Amino acid sequence: MTTNSSPQLWLYDTTLRDGTQREGLSVSIEDKLRIARRLDQLGIPFIEGGWPGANPKDVQFFWQLQEDPLKQAEIVAFCSTRRPNSTAATEPMLQDILAAGTRWVTIFGKSWDLHVTTGLKTTLEENLAMIRDTIEYLRSQGRRIIYDAEHWFDGYKHNRDYALQTLEAAIASGAEWLVLCDTNGGTLPHEISQIVQDVVKVTGEWGMGHGAWGMGKESTQSPMPNAQSPMPQIGIHTHNDSEMAVANAIAAVMAGAKMVQGTINGYGERCGNANLCSLIPNLQLKAGYSCITEDQLTQLTEASRFVSEVVNLAPDEHAPFVGRSAFAHKGGIHVSAVERNPLTYEHIQPEQVGNRRRIVISEQSGLSNVLAKARSFGIELDQQKAEAREILQRLKDLESEGFQFEAAEASFVLLMHEALGDRQKFFEVKGFQVHCDLIEGKETSNALATVKVAVEGKNILEAAEGNGPVAALDAALRKALVNFYPQIATFDLTDYKVRILNGHTGTAAKTRVLVESGNGRQRWTTVGVSTNILAASYQAVVEGLEYGLLLHSQAEAAVKASS
Amino acid sequence: MTTNSSPQLWLYDTTLRDGTQREGLSVSIEDKLRIARRLDQLGIPFIEGGWPGANPKDVQFFWQLQEDPLKQAEIVAFCSTRRPNSTAATEPMLQDILAAGTRWVTIFGKSWDLHVTTGLKTTLEENLAMIRDTIEYLRSQGRRIIYDAEHWFDGYKHNRDYALQTLEAAIASGAEWLVLCDTNGGTLPHEISQIVQDVVKVTGEWGMGHGAWGMGKESTQSPMPNAQSPMPQIGIHTHNDSEMAVANAIAAVMAGAKMVQGTINGYGERCGNANLCSLIPNLQLKAGYSCITEDQLTQLTEASRFVSEVVNLAPDEHAPFVGRSAFAHKGGIHVSAVERNPLTYEHIQPEQVGNRRRIVISEQSGLSNVLAKARSFGIELDQQKAEAREILQRLKDLESEGFQFEAAEASFVLLMHEALGDRQKFFEVKGFQVHCDLIEGKETSNALATVKVAVEGKNILEAAEGNGPVAALDAALRKALVNFYPQIATFDLTDYKVRILNGHTGTAAKTRVLVESGNGRQRWTTVGVSTNILAASYQAVVEGLEYGLLLHSQAEAAVKASS
Repeated sequence: MTTNSSPQLWLYDTTLRDGTQREGLSVSIEDKLRIARRLDQLGIPFIEGGWPGANPKDVQFFWQLQEDPLKQAEIVAFCSTRRPNSTAATEPMLQDILAAGTRWVTIFGKSWDLHVTTGLKTTLEENLAMIRDTIEYLRSQGRRIIYDAEHWFDGYKHNRDYALQTLEAAIASGAEWLVLCDTNGGTLPHEISQIVQDVVKVTGEWGMGHGAWGMGKESTQSPMPNAQSPMPQIGIHTHNDSEMAVANAIAAVMAGAKMVQGTINGYGERCGNANLCSLIPNLQLKAGYSCITEDQLTQLTEASRFVSEVVNLAPDEHAPFVGRSAFAHKGGIHVSAVERNPLTYEHIQPEQVGNRRRIVISEQSGLSNVLAKARSFGIELDQQKAEAREILQRLKDLESEGFQFEAAEASFVLLMHEALGDRQKFFEVKGFQVHCDLIEGKETSNALATVKVAVEGKNILEAAEGNGPVAALDAALRKALVNFYPQIATFDLTDYKVRILNGHTGTAAKTRVLVESGNGRQRWTTVGVSTNILAASYQAVVEGLEYGLLLHSQAEAAVKASS
Repeated sequence: MTTNSSPQLWLYDTTLRDGTQREGLSVSIEDKLRIARRLDQLGIPFIEGGWPGANPKDVQFFWQLQEDPLKQAEIVAFCSTRRPNSTAATEPMLQDILAAGTRWVTIFGKSWDLHVTTGLKTTLEENLAMIRDTIEYLRSQGRRIIYDAEHWFDGYKHNRDYALQTLEAAIASGAEWLVLCDTNGGTLPHEISQIVQDVVKVTGEWGMGHGAWGMGKESTQSPMPNAQSPMPQIGIHTHNDSEMAVANAIAAVMAGAKMVQGTINGYGERCGNANLCSLIPNLQLKAGYSCITEDQLTQLTEASRFVSEVVNLAPDEHAPFVGRSAFAHKGGIHVSAVERNPLTYEHIQPEQVGNRRRIVISEQSGLSNVLAKARSFGIELDQQKAEAREILQRLKDLESEGFQFEAAEASFVLLMHEALGDRQKFFEVKGFQVHCDLIEGKETSNALATVKVAVEGKNILEAAEGNGPVAALDAALRKALVNFYPQIATFDLTDYKVRILNGHTGTAAKTRVLVESGNGRQRWTTVGVSTNILAASYQAVVEGLEYGLLLHSQAEAAVKASS
């Protein structure tokens, strides 16, 4: 646990730059601004915003932040060293950087001799001059510099002397942070540890000698190394190609690095960057470092989901710390034990990162699972009474038919109310028909659904079209019900999943359909199973509407009770 | 890189037991058998099959493997120690284990005093007796024992002495492997390293003293510690709750562990188990250990995708080593640099793990693939001619619409014939209708399909019923065609898979359907994509029939040619 005396680390988020390199991820300026403000709230001190000049979107992003700045965080502009055989002062790219108006600039340069000669096609000496000239010029314009040493670890392994010369050039010209990058993501933790230790030692010796290194003027500003330690500080930037990004970053911190770069949800090129959602709790709850406040840490799960919503990628339900399954418990004995003493089955308290424990209902469930689950939905079951055992039996029967309630909690709640005899009948479906007509060569293939529903003693017959049978069925049901339950206008189908059970018997196999519905504030999932995919979809869609109505009626009852 | 002198490690796969604890993953017996045989091919020496007795499915799985055993791997049954205050010989659970008929059994027991007293509610002494009695009994029945020390690391931290006593009990009663489990997944690599070093040292000393430890009889059998090292061997079993499962397993190996437990794709409860798809290449290509042969290693990517297909979970495209994006390169300079010298931008050669470099948005990248693929189906394309580029373009267009031909090679072959202008027209579907009528409370819900097909200049109209729209459609098509192509009577639909693409947009999302068909001797897969699940199914079913007819006509042509 963090205490007042825990050593401080500086977090540096690059979701908005390196994170957006992930295949399939694209963001608007508005998206980037929303994420930046959220990271600011979360307490990340450095937020890399992009490479203005390389990308017109990024130019505008920085302008908008000049108009309406972040509250606490430093927004950082990112750029390479100047081109070979030019001067920094005449490099247009660097004018864009200055125009971005940030206090801090991250400059990346080459550490690996091979990249200098075969990539940049220049001399090793010119590469050092590019580093020096670029940093000196930006310093002369009042900027503070973070230096990203690209391909550091590979470069160090191939030519330690030259790699160290590039760092020396960065320090001598006024960089305040040296960030060691495992750009290809191939390094293992024990190598990271040895190399960072060496760099900390060597640069520490330089720092002592560099009286003129001079960060004096700004050195009382936070967040950064202060006047009391006028030495270059080391940072770490890792990629996940060996599934080691988080472990490598922690190995670097334990070897003396003081800045940790990463992205929310580990987004990034290829296999991603170091995942801040795992790094922060590991560093703070386990390794004894201080990064953000305890209050901010409790926002982590929400921040992770917020970012995945904004970039429109499905959240990883199995993500450490912040995933929906991260604190999910199955199985009878296990569940009663975790309720007695969470310490025995959970490595941290889920609430510390804003997540929560979930009791999963499944085939292996015992009675204590069912009771715990019911309780989490505000339903008190009596272990001694027949209902609890009846629910358990019904659950097992349905699961052996192929139902699965792990991911379909709304259907489970309806099942409990059924067993308790207090399931509200909002409507009754008397039957449905689906018709689909496809003509070869015709682009669209609408489906037509008709439903017959009984509500408040009346039979309603309605029909609707959709771009598939499920959409048509959903539309017809809503049309039939919306006059009785106007709140249905706010419901929508947000996800639809299909799994063929006991496959390998062709289309006679059973189909399980999960439907996720929402009302703008909440989301819930229902399940249907049948050999007929349309019948399975129908069950799930109908229960999805019913559960939405149940939520609404509970909310109304709560308002009445409190007034 | 691995050499002949690289130290040997033993891999232990628990995809079929711990892996299936993942929320949302469920497998049939048939699925489990297919995965076990694939892991056997991959060269995994120990494959944990399940807990017979706890689960009727697992009992059957082991029986089937007794009928038709694996080629190389040891299939392992998993079970807990006997219950408190009973005897192993009268424990029904252990009779199920013996009935499973495996040479090896993994027994898990409690290491953490707290779990003994609050979980099992028994005494620390009785827990030791449970370990001893269970292992001795199974040894007396001729079984060889792997002992999984549950909650080892937490137990060790709370009460080192007691935790070590549990290991001593396991060794003294004849366990050959002691597997240290980070059950809650909360331990960091530096702790793993220290603790494993301590255990290796302590148990090594015991081993020296335990002359009567006696593994003599079986000790020349492979794969296992041999007579020359009559000492207990240590294994490691990690979970990913801190995003450290792979790093922790490697830390343990470097501290002396000789067995590594994990799952394909890291499947497992909560945040998953150690991912063998990352562990194996890290251990073998980087850390200098030997696990499987180089040839087997090149099957890794395919094995990963195979398992994800069988369990019907979307593969993680960003997975290290085996993901589709793991070696994807964007952008111009970068791409030419990587082609000049892959070493500068790739941490390993993708081919070493059976993956491949992907140049994102590039024409040339695909062409050689298309040529190779065509060749594998006996179609020679000329790189210089327009057709090859046309196929490539058509492929890219279709893939951007959501088609995927990796698993649907029959559809790819039809596409190539289309581009070459020699696609045989066996029939033409003019249109289809599907109708489904469901009445509440009525058990069956048959679907009715009508199709209009043109064959040899005649229009045929047919209708058929099925227990779902796809079965009905398939039946109607066969009825319409069987008089022209009697061989169609031998075709059947053998598998049907549905995946919703770009989820989270509800039912307007696209649906991809894979249909596997067979003719009793061969099987082939076709694909369809549409927002309408029925239209997607229709495409795949129609191409399935067409490809079957193509195979038949090719076989007839071959017979004619040879006579």
